[in-house]
Amino acid sequence: MSDPVQIGTAFVKFYYQTFDTDRANLASLYQANSMLTFSGAQAMGSAAIMEKLTSLSFRKVQHDVEGLNINIQPTVNDSILVFVSGQLIADDDSDHPMMFSQVFTLCPSNGQWFILNDIFNLSFL
Amino acid sequence: MSDPVQIGTAFVKFYYQTFDTDRANLASLYQANSMLTFSGAQAMGSAAIMEKLTSLSFRKVQHDVEGLNINIQPTVNDSILVFVSGQLIADDDSDHPMMFSQVFTLCPSNGQWFILNDIFNLSFL
Repeated sequence: MSDPVQIGTAFVKFYYQTFDTDRANLASLYQANSMLTFSGAQAMGSAAIMEKLTSLSFRKVQHDVEGLNINIQPTVNDSILVFVSGQLIADDDSDHPMMFSQVFTLCPSNGQWFILNDIFNLSFL
Repeated sequence: MSDPVQIGTAFVKFYYQTFDTDRANLASLYQANSMLTFSGAQAMGSAAIMEKLTSLSFRKVQHDVEGLNINIQPTVNDSILVFVSGQLIADDDSDHPMMFSQVFTLCPSNGQWFILNDIFNLSFL
């Protein structure tokens, strides 16, 4: 198997670049058993998760992908735990960048990786 | 199986209360394959992890257990993903509380739970 750190790092870049350019394209990363907790709101399954992610109050989001703090560990059954924190700018309000932190568990499935767990918090507390 | 949210919440309280009163007692929560990433420094296995946790520059730590933000999801193979953020006070310096965030994967083993993954960051970025 490839290195979890390489896979996790490549995933993070792809995820945030896709989030910021065409959020709907994230759908292929989630499956029927995927779970999202977004600032406390819960959704399960790709359809419900995409409904949540494409109906956020922020119409435009720019994550500071280069400045992300990324920690990665292998976890249960060749899955990968990814812990990210950093800044994002919503709706071009660059005077007020916001802190976010996000945790993913990535699982292998038919030679691809999907997001089983996704927990996002916009601010630290 | 019991509710992951109940198990994760009970774990969080036990973990931080033990961390703050007798850090050495955390040893039983880690096993040989446990991984710790502590502010970027890595340790694997209960012995190496306890060496790290008991040799921190902070001799006394108080986590604000009541004020924690806790998010919990079930994950691979009946394991539990726990994402915590909050404040701690080091060495009684209550004028300067610090932000921290921490992710755990808890796994069942012989009727107990152990920490497979532990990623701790002291500040947000």
